[in-house]
Parts: sequence; structure tokens; C-alpha cells
Amino acid sequence: MRDRGPGLADATRGRLLFGGDYNPEQWPPDVWPDDVRLMRQAGVNLATVGVFAWAALEPAPGEYDFAWLDTVLELLHEAGIGVALATPTASPPPWLGHRHPGTLPQGPDGVRRHYGSRMHYCPSAPEYRRAALAVTEALAARYAHHPALRLWHIGNEFGTVCLCDRCAERFRGWLRARYGDLDVLNEAWGTSVWSQRYSQWSQLIPPRTVQYIGNPQQDLDFQRFSDDLLRECFIAERDAVRAFGPHVPVTTNFMDFYRPVDGWRWAAAEDFVSLDTYPDPNDPRAPMLGAMSKDVMRSLGAGPWLLMEQSPGAASWRPVSTPKRPGLHRLWSLQAVARGADGVLQFQWRASRQGLERAHGAMVPHAGPDSRVFRETCALGAELAALSDVEGLLGAPVPADVAIVLDWDAWRAAELPHQPHDGFRYTDRLTDYYEPLWRANITCDFARAGGDLGRYRLVLVPNLYQVSTAAAADLAAYVAGGGTLVLGPFSGVADPEERIYTGGWPGPLRDLVGVRVEEHWPLPDGEPVEVESDELGPFTAATWAEWAESTGADVVARARGGPLDGRPLVLRNRFGAGTAWYVATLPSAGGLARLLARVCADTGVRPVLDGLAPGVEAVRRGPVVFLLDHGTGRVEVRVDGAIPD
Amino acid sequence: MRDRGPGLADATRGRLLFGGDYNPEQWPPDVWPDDVRLMRQAGVNLATVGVFAWAALEPAPGEYDFAWLDTVLELLHEAGIGVALATPTASPPPWLGHRHPGTLPQGPDGVRRHYGSRMHYCPSAPEYRRAALAVTEALAARYAHHPALRLWHIGNEFGTVCLCDRCAERFRGWLRARYGDLDVLNEAWGTSVWSQRYSQWSQLIPPRTVQYIGNPQQDLDFQRFSDDLLRECFIAERDAVRAFGPHVPVTTNFMDFYRPVDGWRWAAAEDFVSLDTYPDPNDPRAPMLGAMSKDVMRSLGAGPWLLMEQSPGAASWRPVSTPKRPGLHRLWSLQAVARGADGVLQFQWRASRQGLERAHGAMVPHAGPDSRVFRETCALGAELAALSDVEGLLGAPVPADVAIVLDWDAWRAAELPHQPHDGFRYTDRLTDYYEPLWRANITCDFARAGGDLGRYRLVLVPNLYQVSTAAAADLAAYVAGGGTLVLGPFSGVADPEERIYTGGWPGPLRDLVGVRVEEHWPLPDGEPVEVESDELGPFTAATWAEWAESTGADVVARARGGPLDGRPLVLRNRFGAGTAWYVATLPSAGGLARLLARVCADTGVRPVLDGLAPGVEAVRRGPVVFLLDHGTGRVEVRVDGAIPD
Amino acid sequence: MRDRGPGLADATRGRLLFGGDYNPEQWPPDVWPDDVRLMRQAGVNLATVGVFAWAALEPAPGEYDFAWLDTVLELLHEAGIGVALATPTASPPPWLGHRHPGTLPQGPDGVRRHYGSRMHYCPSAPEYRRAALAVTEALAARYAHHPALRLWHIGNEFGTVCLCDRCAERFRGWLRARYGDLDVLNEAWGTSVWSQRYSQWSQLIPPRTVQYIGNPQQDLDFQRFSDDLLRECFIAERDAVRAFGPHVPVTTNFMDFYRPVDGWRWAAAEDFVSLDTYPDPNDPRAPMLGAMSKDVMRSLGAGPWLLMEQSPGAASWRPVSTPKRPGLHRLWSLQAVARGADGVLQFQWRASRQGLERAHGAMVPHAGPDSRVFRETCALGAELAALSDVEGLLGAPVPADVAIVLDWDAWRAAELPHQPHDGFRYTDRLTDYYEPLWRANITCDFARAGGDLGRYRLVLVPNLYQVSTAAAADLAAYVAGGGTLVLGPFSGVADPEERIYTGGWPGPLRDLVGVRVEEHWPLPDGEPVEVESDELGPFTAATWAEWAESTGADVVARARGGPLDGRPLVLRNRFGAGTAWYVATLPSAGGLARLLARVCADTGVRPVLDGLAPGVEAVRRGPVVFLLDHGTGRVEVRVDGAIPD
Repeated sequence: MRDRGPGLADATRGRLLFGGDYNPEQWPPDVWPDDVRLMRQAGVNLATVGVFAWAALEPAPGEYDFAWLDTVLELLHEAGIGVALATPTASPPPWLGHRHPGTLPQGPDGVRRHYGSRMHYCPSAPEYRRAALAVTEALAARYAHHPALRLWHIGNEFGTVCLCDRCAERFRGWLRARYGDLDVLNEAWGTSVWSQRYSQWSQLIPPRTVQYIGNPQQDLDFQRFSDDLLRECFIAERDAVRAFGPHVPVTTNFMDFYRPVDGWRWAAAEDFVSLDTYPDPNDPRAPMLGAMSKDVMRSLGAGPWLLMEQSPGAASWRPVSTPKRPGLHRLWSLQAVARGADGVLQFQWRASRQGLERAHGAMVPHAGPDSRVFRETCALGAELAALSDVEGLLGAPVPADVAIVLDWDAWRAAELPHQPHDGFRYTDRLTDYYEPLWRANITCDFARAGGDLGRYRLVLVPNLYQVSTAAAADLAAYVAGGGTLVLGPFSGVADPEERIYTGGWPGPLRDLVGVRVEEHWPLPDGEPVEVESDELGPFTAATWAEWAESTGADVVARARGGPLDGRPLVLRNRFGAGTAWYVATLPSAGGLARLLARVCADTGVRPVLDGLAPGVEAVRRGPVVFLLDHGTGRVEVRVDGAIPD
Repeated sequence: MRDRGPGLADATRGRLLFGGDYNPEQWPPDVWPDDVRLMRQAGVNLATVGVFAWAALEPAPGEYDFAWLDTVLELLHEAGIGVALATPTASPPPWLGHRHPGTLPQGPDGVRRHYGSRMHYCPSAPEYRRAALAVTEALAARYAHHPALRLWHIGNEFGTVCLCDRCAERFRGWLRARYGDLDVLNEAWGTSVWSQRYSQWSQLIPPRTVQYIGNPQQDLDFQRFSDDLLRECFIAERDAVRAFGPHVPVTTNFMDFYRPVDGWRWAAAEDFVSLDTYPDPNDPRAPMLGAMSKDVMRSLGAGPWLLMEQSPGAASWRPVSTPKRPGLHRLWSLQAVARGADGVLQFQWRASRQGLERAHGAMVPHAGPDSRVFRETCALGAELAALSDVEGLLGAPVPADVAIVLDWDAWRAAELPHQPHDGFRYTDRLTDYYEPLWRANITCDFARAGGDLGRYRLVLVPNLYQVSTAAAADLAAYVAGGGTLVLGPFSGVADPEERIYTGGWPGPLRDLVGVRVEEHWPLPDGEPVEVESDELGPFTAATWAEWAESTGADVVARARGGPLDGRPLVLRNRFGAGTAWYVATLPSAGGLARLLARVCADTGVRPVLDGLAPGVEAVRRGPVVFLLDHGTGRVEVRVDGAIPD
Repeated sequence: MRDRGPGLADATRGRLLFGGDYNPEQWPPDVWPDDVRLMRQAGVNLATVGVFAWAALEPAPGEYDFAWLDTVLELLHEAGIGVALATPTASPPPWLGHRHPGTLPQGPDGVRRHYGSRMHYCPSAPEYRRAALAVTEALAARYAHHPALRLWHIGNEFGTVCLCDRCAERFRGWLRARYGDLDVLNEAWGTSVWSQRYSQWSQLIPPRTVQYIGNPQQDLDFQRFSDDLLRECFIAERDAVRAFGPHVPVTTNFMDFYRPVDGWRWAAAEDFVSLDTYPDPNDPRAPMLGAMSKDVMRSLGAGPWLLMEQSPGAASWRPVSTPKRPGLHRLWSLQAVARGADGVLQFQWRASRQGLERAHGAMVPHAGPDSRVFRETCALGAELAALSDVEGLLGAPVPADVAIVLDWDAWRAAELPHQPHDGFRYTDRLTDYYEPLWRANITCDFARAGGDLGRYRLVLVPNLYQVSTAAAADLAAYVAGGGTLVLGPFSGVADPEERIYTGGWPGPLRDLVGVRVEEHWPLPDGEPVEVESDELGPFTAATWAEWAESTGADVVARARGGPLDGRPLVLRNRFGAGTAWYVATLPSAGGLARLLARVCADTGVRPVLDGLAPGVEAVRRGPVVFLLDHGTGRVEVRVDGAIPD
């Protein structure tokens, strides 16, 4: 976040935002007044306009048509509805790809991805970049001071990857900037393995189709490069709109748990962060996953954030796109507010009659306003309006004593090909730890691996496969200063150049946890390890274990039976004024819940409310404690006295 | 069908046809007399010749060799065996693709499909079209009046799709012809979604590889175009052979349930229809699927049809190619005659020693004539000869009071990507309704969605995802006139341009059924909905349900429990002089059987025979009632008195 | 094997070899002395150097750098450690592919496989061949007489396949050499099927992407061609190193059960054979598969062989790469010595910190020498040193009375597309027969289908899908001379040009077994056939059965129930002075074990030791009987008196 400059408060202006993506270009103009009338009926105060309007705004190269958008913005403004204006650059018109085939992205196999869908642009292509910037500037020039304008929405769900020759050229430039010298790159990429040493910069290419499997550091650097390249696109458009109106906050919309885009780095370039969130209504874990995704947003943005997209009904891209049952959309919307959102927007306002998203839910569904969904839309609008009146809620923080470390480098590297267990998914590791705390109504933040963690009683590091010595030092300092840390397995394995640490793992974190791991011991499906522990009771663990030894830590749990019989699997180490746990396996849900309950008890971490029925979620935000019942039966909640802060 | 001109009767000449594909070019000439001797022994009266003989007929460009074919036709004719002469255009010789690489088809990724297999032609390539027409005309010129010639067999199992630049050009022409104006196309394709608006015709391309997923209407139109393009190839060859001998009937061979080829439109261009049918002997549903496929053929051709290919043993292309058990081939052959076939041909006469189909069954298997299979071949030949003597059987119709609507547009559109449930298969919906009637020995026709259905007591519409207002009016007229109709779910959703109907579904069929559906409610696997009904008793339903309300219909069954609790799932509406049911879900087999039994009872629809043991199929054709026992045990059938017509 | 010339004994020089791949180019020079010190500590006497060192040896085209390798070889030599010097040609440096893109291989789709991995070379590319030969000659010129040199290791795990235009040209040359005349090729390829007749040599291409599925004989010939082409690469390098030092034995490393490389033909071109073997520690069948792979090596080499690679820990390329439990590496190493290996090498000496194999086990793991794995390394070194002192062990043969026929043509052809059962895997057929004998501690050799088998009491032919008349005659002569043979199903089906034998199967083996098979009867999963037999007791069989009749053989077992009810499935035929069994199905493990026990009893085939506990493997080699306990519990072995030879 910029220290100075506009923020989400400049968009909310004191009211929780409510509304959604509005694509008037899909409808004849006589529908527009009806749209605005229904928006007012539903309590909508923000409409996101223009996300996929490039072809409508620039029907032919350089020929702009803003008349329709002038009308739409005027209609909205007259009705008191604010506008999130999007740069339409996520989907260029066919004329661009037809005139400049080099703007179409290429896959690893060299096959061009054609227009006729979306995201069909090469982020390196100068013709794309020029055209994208031109339409952005034209929009900004015209609307930067439009009274309806509340915020800029740059592009959409950035994530396009291209491996064409021009991206190869840009990649080489990125590598030169990172490594300076070709010898340094050769060393960092480990090109002495398999005779891959590069003798000229011009030999370097993206990870295209190979005979076997490619270099892992090439893969990782290309992920980093692609992320940087997209962020460069974002920043170019951000700066273009700022140039015309620096008072308007700028954001772009993240997706749930999305590896290609490093949330920490992107958040630092935005005025506030936004989330597109689509938990699967058929997934019993959806309430937890939704809570976690929202907590991640609050943490990335270090404060209030905007729920930019969710579906009032089905998401159209699932194999089975079941709608939300009655009340579910309200429930998940309130979960967003509880967890720090200052606005709840949907994709989209009126269901598209055509195109690939015609089966996607909408605030005004195909059935029209006389429908369950539109009635729930109106009720939600009214409820958010009422909540906007609660003093101290809007903009309020969500207190948390626990932080979970989330690190994109660890994530990307842990999931490279040919790691010891290809079923080891980084986000599963996060939910391993998040879920028991969520069930216990203990609120968590997410945090970077490095930096000051001193404000947390407890820091959980479910996995930190890659770790720099600097980040290791920060974690050690946190514990030494009295903090408590729990470190999960397959951590401290590699440095940021994906060089394996030698001498035992978790590498630079060994002293902190008082453990030395000699071998990773992935477990095949159906062959769990039995764990015995006086403190925690017996439990099983699956997927992963390690051949570890204590170099000072107390052994809390050991393997029983099998090749690891008797070896320590959970250890606790006093370090300075604090305590560091090491969990060398993936305990069952019950086992990990007991372990975390113990750690929370030790550190004085408390739930928002105790003794709630299963499925009832409690979150405090500012003056409000939200109680969210995710079950479908009736539940009774008794609160005696005041709820503790 | 043409009103005038030759038909299947000109090929049968009063005898059920029996024989199969005969590829003498795979064998030395000294085998041919032995072939003919064995054919006579087996009662063969028709041999299909030349399907894959292009390279033998035209070994080098423009150099024809008909000598061997002259000999073969003479040998057959001398033995009294008729000939189905094929145009060999389904598999061009390597010299064509080598000399003109542009005749090799391209996939969505631009990769050419090479020769060395079959179907390796681009149907747009002028070089292919010219060469195919030339060999066709040379054949027709030479053999159109050959006394052995009974029918022309054009190409083989049409279905090739190509996305090359020349197909792109043809596609643009097809689109211009369909839409006339680019604005009309943009509107029909919904290009305002995702900024896909085309500003010049030259920008339009086939659905090639894209970054995400392509435009559904582009996909659908390309399916329609590819179908038309192939039919254009068929018609060009048809007209070429007719020019030389208008007295000879012309057909091409369909496949079981094949989406790329719209049977109604193709049948209209043929003199009679033919079927290649390969039910899996390991599939317990094969007898039902075979019956249905045959009923489809009878319906497409509006009368007798020809079974062009089936295997006397295994089909070689299955993962597990189990042969037919003793007697099974006879059983399925008689099923064809019972259901309207005037001939039973096999692929193929003598098993190929080489090539990809060397493990495919044949009338003369690898083991030779001293074999179970050849003995069964001879017995079948004798039995068909005896049946040919049954007066009134050959050419007779198969009476049916029930029609099931089969619609290729609905099929293709319902299975586009990103529909609400990607496990919703159109042909499964057909079998949902066909199977209980087949089990009850109630004979069904298939029918187009539009047109006059007045001759049926009952019309079943298992699905009509896409429906035009004209077809909707025809269905309404049928019911208004006293008919009974049952409409299945996910119907009346889109118009023929794949625009979703607004205001509630089934769109233009809403008044007919007295129902308004607000939301589609696909169900994940393992989560059925419970249905309760006083009339039908309780049952479960899976995969699909809907949030519906009656706008006038009686509610016959409702959901119990879950988010749809209490909502109507089966409804019955009086409409004019008739009745329309709406089934908003996919009932279990038992539930749907009870519903259909009820509807049949209401409409006076009766089985061919009542009270037969399970697995015994009864079909009336002309004067004969066929009783086909699909079980492997013994079964007793008692018939008291005459079988009712 | 060459009759004269060096052999493995010239490499072992009286000691079992112990060591592994050593890649000093991955480490700074100051690590090298430590490597050598640790090697001495571990008892290492051979280091494989240079396998992937091309880029280090030739950093730029034509610029060689041998200084580092001089140093390494000197260090090793000073420590008394021998060297297996590799030609580094399995992984060209990036400069080769960058300068000559034509050296990068192409897939069937025409997509180039890029550098950045390994095996990225087209074996036809003259630029690759020239550069590979040049670096090989430079190495040989410099080191052929180096005192540390024990053997040449050519390339690595040959197996690259390319379908580029230059390979197409070479393929045409290979076809001309094989068939001479285009008509002969057309006949052999069965191009009369599907109109594939070639009219010019220039039309012939590799099996590139096709619309449906390609010609099976084209596929098979391309497999044979690719094998020959790679062997040509091998031989070129072999001859190059021999030219500089004919006294040094030459090998290349095979992989476990690898279809692309015909072991019999390659072994004939090597001085001795070597194996890279990676059984999965999580696979309960690994001990048996390991034993079989080792027996194959001994048989291919007709004597002692070298275990070139195995992992002391995990193999990094599995989905779940679990390390070996304590003791397992020792166990499998001793299994190799017991089954004829005169050396036990590992991949690799020191774990790579980078690259795709960074999670692969090593003799010195990432944890360093203070580790379980390094301690086991040292113990194994000491144990092998002690075994080297056992008189008569090194170089000794492993006696076997049973041979299993292993035939690459049958393997490749039986697994072509569109065979009757695509789950019929040739290697499964080998283990069907190998496993019960291995469990019974009966040692087996493997043998070619043709040639003299007279030294075996029993010959097992689990499958011989393709068989030449010459091989059939050899097998018949073996039985006629008093031998016993067991032939499995789906045998004698096709000749070496993949033409199906007519008149009944097993084709030219029909008289030998006294059986005529009319039809193959593959069985779907979950539908076994019941078999009854007075001699063997009842058993079930799955996946495959046949419609067979005896033409003279005694029927030992018959199907009960189902379509094959009463048909013979196991038959025994007296033929000359011997006996031939035919097993027309795939019996359950128990059924086949009883059958083989019966055959062994009949032929006097005896186990090495009788009555051992399950999981204990006994193998005799020279003066030693190895007892290998594959279980994890305690087991007691009592031997009364001497163990019979």
C-alpha cells in the first residue's frame, strides 16, 4: 500500500459497497433504465463497468465510441450509484489479434491461443501494450473526474502466460537484471546438472516443451518473470489512470489461492486489494475455504478490502454448477464483512443471455426480478445498508493473535515437478493449520515469512520449503523475543535459487527448532504412520514423514512401527524467550487439532466465543461479533455476559 | 427422402439382403473364387465392394485400374450376388496427401493429420474434392449399368472435421450465407460478451485453440458448418453417380448415436438410410441400445432401412474386444429385421490379416470356414432366406404409438462446454425414456421436434434444451389437438442461436406445461434428491433438478428435504384437448418407469405383448411378432389367442 | 558379445566393483578431495565420471576443457579408485540446439523438444552426430590409456525417439534396405487395407499424428528403426573409443524392462551389459521385479554383468518417492551379486543440490556423511569387499534349469494399438510365470525364442504373439528332443510382418501344442472365467481366454459356465520325446503356481532350497548360496546337511 494516496475509504465514502459487474453493452439501451431502477430497488451503490468492453469502446483500431458509456455513467450517477470503472484490457477485440498475430499468446508447444475467448494477449507484445495503454488513457482522460467514479479496476484476474519469442526476449532481459552475469545464472540454475550450461545469453528460452522434464529453476524463474511481467502491465495502466486523476483509488481483482500472482507484491502496488471468490456450494469445506480466502485478502491489504466478485447463484465453470441454496449467499457475504470487507460485489448484475458464462448466476437471473434470487439480492442490499449504519464497523480491523505464514516462493517451489511427493499441495498445508483454528473460532491473519511478527502471540508456518537466511533470521528473532512458532514439515529445504540446503533440514531453521532432518519420507496413499505421544495422545499421520533427530528439542511425539519406528515426529524447542515446535509429518485432523489446542492454551490464544455448536462461526470486527451458522438445522447460541474483546 | 426415385426395394428385389463388406484387394486373386463359393454356401446375396479401394483403383494420380474390379464384379454376378458399390473417398491414397499437403486435415492446434490411417482429408480442399469426384465418376461411368449393381454406398461413416485455413474460408462463406450481415452475426454469437465483436468478416476463424474456452455459438455453428460441408461432399458424389444411372439407390452409412451428423438432414438427401451398429457384447444395456439405434434408423428413413455393418465377432477398437457369444449375432440381426431392416450386412466378409482391423470379427474369421463363426454365418443366411419367404414381412412398417423427439441442435447445444452439469449427456436422456418402454415391449418411433406428430398417442421429449418458437408451437398444437406429451428437464432453455430464454424456462414451452423454472439445480454425484408423490409413490432422482413453480399445472411429485424441499418436480397440465407433463428432474429408473406406465395407461398405449419374462423383447413387424430372448437361460412364453395388432 | 576382446573381468580386476556416478562438475574443486576421502572410507573402487559433462568438457563449440577432468581422474587414481568414463552424448549443451535447431527432436505432432532437459537430440541429425563423435574422440584420445580407466560408458539410457524430416529420410532408407521393393513393403504393411498403398518411396513417413490410428506395421517398423538408429549411435561411439584403446571394455546402461531397446541385439554389440534398476520401495512386488530384471541382465550378457545405477535412497521421479528403509539397499545389492552382478554402483555419489534430480538419493546424501545412508554405504562397501575375497564367487555363473522366452518383437507387436485387450501387457505375462518360480526359489534364465534351448529342462513361453516359422521350428525341435515347454495364450498369432496367421492359432506352433484356437476371448474386468481341472483343482482366470479345441492334446482344464463352458483352457501334448503345454488363459496366481509346480515336478526342476519361509529368497552363485530375507520380521532358516548343487 502507498503511504499516501487514496484508499478504499475514498470508494466506500461511509457505506458498505453493494453491487456488481454491470455489462450494459450486452443489452439494448432500452434495458438500461430498467437496470438502474432495479439497482435502486436492490440497494446497489456501486456498479463495475467496462471490464470486457474494449470492442465496444474501440470497435476498430483507434476509433473510440464513448457515447454509450457516457449514457450509462450518467444514468448510474443520476440514480446515486457509484462506478468502478475497468480498463478493458483483459480481452482485446479480434481486430488486434487478426492484425497483429504476435499479440496472441503461445503455449509451451508453440501453438498460438486465438481470439474468441479471453486472456488472448501476449503481455510482452508491443502492439498489445500500446493499444491497451491507449484505450486506458482515453478512458482516464474522459472519466477520471466523472462524479460517479469511485475506483479504477485494472484489467481482470491477471494470469496470462505466454512463451513466444518476444516473451523469451523479455525473459532474457529479466534474467540479466536478476543475475547480471551468465556464470551467476549458470550457478543459480544448476546448469552443471545434465549439461545445461549456457554459453551465451541468446541461448536462454522459456520452459518450452522438452523431451523429459525441464530445469526447476528455469521453471521457477519463469513463474517469477511472468508474475513481474503481468504486474508491469498492471502498473502501466495504474500509472496511466493516476496521471489523469490521482485522487481515485486503483485496484485489480485477485482470485482465491492463485499461485501465479504473488499477492504480497501485487498488494504493494495497489491502493487496496480486491477478491473474486467462488467457493463451491457443494463442497462441505467451502465455509472454511471462504473464510481463509477472505482472511488472506485482509492480510494482503493490511486492512479493509473489497469483495469484487462472487456469484449469487452458480459459478458456470464447474463440472457441476449447483446454485447457492436459499440464504447461503447472504451468509457468505456477511462472512466477508465480518472478515474485513468494506463492500460486497457480485459477478454479475444481470445474467448474460449468451457466451460462455450464460449459466453463471446473477443478481437479476434469467428468470428476471420475480425470482428467489432477486428477492435475496434486495434483502442483502437492505441488510448491508443497515450494517453501514452500525457505528465503527466500516473500516474496522479484525483482531487476531495468530498469524499463518504464506509465501509464494515456497508455494511455487514446493510444487515443482519431481518433488518427493507430487500430492503435496501447498494450499492443503495452509488449510491443515487454518481449519482447526477456524473450527475453534480463533481468528488468524496471514503474514509474510520475513519481517516483524512481534504483534502475534503465535505464528504458524505450515510449510516453508524455500527459505532465505534473512527470513530464517526474522523467524528466529520472533521466537527469541518470546514468540511461539510451529513449523511444519518439508521446510527449510531449499534457498531462493532452489539450491538444497546441505547438512540437514530445516536448513537455516535447524537451530531454531532444535531438529536435524536427514531424510524426507513421503508416504504412499493408504499407508499412514502411527504416532504416539503422552502429551497429545495417539494419532495417525499420512502423506509425509521425516527421518529426524532432536539436536536439543524435546520430543513430544514419535512414530510407532514401520521403518521410522521410534523416530521423533513432533518436537518442541525452547529458543531464547520463546518456543518453537517442529511437526515432521502431516497429522490427522484430530491430531493436529489437539496439538494446536495445546499450543493455543500455552500461548493464551483464545477463541472469539467458546462452546458454540459445530458449524457456527464467530468473528469479531470492530464493535460487532458476527455469528454465522453454516448448518442447515436450527442452532441455539447463549451468551452470558459481554463477549470478551 | 425424395418423393420419386429409387429406394431400398430396388436393392432388395424381394429378398432380405445378407452379406457384408468385401475387400478383395486385400487378397490374391486366387482367393476370390473361394470367396464366392463360400458366399453362396452362406446365402450371401449382397457384397459391399470398394469402400477403401481408392489406392487400388487409382494407384497413381489419374491412372485408373479397374481390371481387378471388373473381375470381382463378374465373379459375384455370375454367382447371383448383388453388389453395393462404394465410392472410395473416405481414405485417399498417400499420393494425394504427399502431392497436396493441404488435403490433410488440421486440428484445432494447427497440427496436420497425416495419411497412413483413414479420414485424412480436408473436406474443403479443392484437390481432394476434384480427385474424389473424378474417381467417383470413373466408377459410375464404368459400373452404373452393371447388372450386379444394387446400390451406391457413398464414402464411409462421414465425420471428418478440419480447421485449416481453407476450411476457415469456407466457414466464413457459410456464416455470411447464414447471417448476411456482420452485425447480425455479432448479435447471434453474443460477441458483446468478453469483447469478441468482429469488425470484418476476415477476422472470423474456426474454434481453434484458445487460452480459456471459446465462444459457444462459434462452436455450435462450426459443428453445423462441418456437418453441412460433409453433406456437400456426399451430395456431390451422390449426384455424380446418379448422373450415370438414376435408377440405382444411393445411401451412406450412419453410426450409432453420432452427434456430428444430423440424421434428419442427411436422411433427406439419401434414397434410404443405412446403419453401422456396434453395441458392446460386454454391456448389459447393449440389447436396449441396439434396439434404440435401429428404431432411430427406421425413423430417420421413414421406413425400411439397411443394416450396413455389424461385426459377427468382436469390434477391434474397444479396450476389451470380446466376441459375441454363440447365438448373439443371430439375435441382434433378427432384432434389426424386427425393427425395420430389410437387410443385414456385416463388416466384413473375410477377416483382414493386416492393418488396424485385423482383430475385428468377420463372417469368415481368421480360423477359416471350419469355425463356429462361419457356421453361424451360414445358419443366419439360411434363416434370413426363410424370413424373406414370409409374405408381407419385407418392406413392412413397424407400428408405434409413441414417438421420442430426437433433435441434433438440442443435442449439440446441451453438450457445449460450461453447461450447468457436464455429465448431462443427451443420449442418456433419450435412453432414460426409451429403456422403460423397451422393457415394457412398447415400440417407439423417433421424431423431429417440429412438424406434425398427430399420428402418435404419446410424444416423449426427454430433452429439448434448444427449441425454436416454431417447434414449440408445433408441440403445443399437438397437445392442444388431444395429444399427450412428456417434457424432460433442461428444456426450452435456449433459442437456435444459443440465446438463453429469459423470464423462466422452458421458455416458449412454458404455457404448454404450465410451469415456470427459475433455476437449474444440477446435483453432484452421490447427492440424489428424494421425491414424494401420492400418485407415483416415492422415488429418488439424481444429477439434475430444478427450482420450479406451477403456473397452472397440477403438481404430481415434490422434492422432500434439501434446499428444494417441497418444490414441484413432476407436473401435469391440461392444455387444449390434451395433456402435457413436465418432469423437472431425472428420476431413478423405477420412478420413471412408474411415471411412464401411468402415462401409457392414460393414453391407451399398449405393449406388443404383456407379461413376458424380463429380457424377452417383443416387436411386431407386418405379419410377424418377433420374440427375442436376450437372456442366457431358458424362458417360456405362453400366448393365449391371437396377438393384438 | 564379441568372442575376443575385453570383458567385465578387465574392469573388475578381481574385486566386486563398488561406487557410483560421480559428477564433480557440480561442485567446487575444494569438495573433490573430500569426495575422494569419503570414497575411500566407503570402500569405493569405481567412479562413473562424465555422463552429463558435455557442456563442461566443451563449453563452446570445438573448445574443449579437460583440465578439470585431468585433475579429477588424477585424484581418483591416486586414491586407487578406478574410473568408468562416459561419453557425454546423452545431453548436448544448449549451444548445439541453439546453433542447429535441427538437432532438437520432434514429436509426432511436429513440435520440437527443446534443450533445458536431457535426451534433446535427434539421432539422425548430422550436426549432432558429428559433435558427439568429436567429443567422444577427444575424450578417448586423451584418456584411453589413463591408468584409472576401467571401462567406457557410452551415452546414457538410450531411448530418444524423433520423427523429424531427417529421421523420415533415414527411415525411408531403412525401409528400402529391409524391403528392397516398394511392392514388398506394401504387402508387408498391408497397405491394401484402408487404401494406404504407397506409390513412391518418398511418400513414406514416420508414424506422425493421424486422424484416427495409424498402420500397425508402420508403427512396429518405426520402433525397430528407432532402435537400430540408436544402436548405430552407440556403435559409432563404441568404435571411436575402441580405436584409441581396444583393451578397455565398452558398455552402455540398460533400464528395467524397456521396450524401445531390444536387449538381445544391443548386448551383442557390447563387451558386457549393465543395468540401471529402480524398483519402487513401496511396491510389494519390488523384490520379485528386481530379481527378474537382474536375471534378464545375466541372460542378455550370458554371464556376469554390472549393476550400473540404483538409488541408495529415493528415486526422484516417482509420484511418491519414498526412500529405502534401513537395510533394503544392502538387500537389493546382494540380490544383484547373487544373480550374477560383478559390481554394484549407485546413482549417484553425492546428492545434487540442484536440478531435477535433487530429491534423488545418493551415497552421500544432502545431510552429509553423518547420516544413516552414508553409514549404510560404508557397511555395504565393506561387505562387498569381504565377498570379493570369497574364492570362486566373482565371475561365477548362476545355474538355472528353466528358461523363460523374452522376445522384443512379440512384446512390441502384442502391445500395438487395437489388439483385442489393451490391458494385455507383455511384461505382466513374464511376471505371471516368473513370480511363482521366484517364490519357489527356482532360478530362471531368460532366452531368445529361436536357437538352441537344449540345456534347459523346462522352457516357459508366457507369450509369443509374433513368431517366425524359424523360431517355431526351433521350439518344436527343443520339445521333440525331450524338452518340456509351456506356451501361454495370444501366441502364434502373427508373423514378423504382423500378418495374422490363418487357419487357427497358435499358427506355426499348432502341431507342437496339439491345439487349434479359433477365437481370442478377452475378458472384461471383473468377469473372470471359472476353470475346473481334476489334475490342478479349480481356479479362476481373468483378462483373457480363448475358444480352443484339442487337435491331439490332452485336456487338463476346462472352462465352467459362461459362453466358453466346457471348452479346453489348459492342454498337454506329447510331441516327439517331449511335452508341450498350452495355457489358453491367464490363471490366477494360485492356479498357475499349481500348474508350474506340476510341470517342475514332472521335469525334475528343483528349488535352490526347499521349505523356506515366505519372503526368503535363495539363489546359488558359484560356491555361495545367498539367502535374502525380504520381510521385516525375524525369520529362522534351518539347513540340514549340504545344500544340493
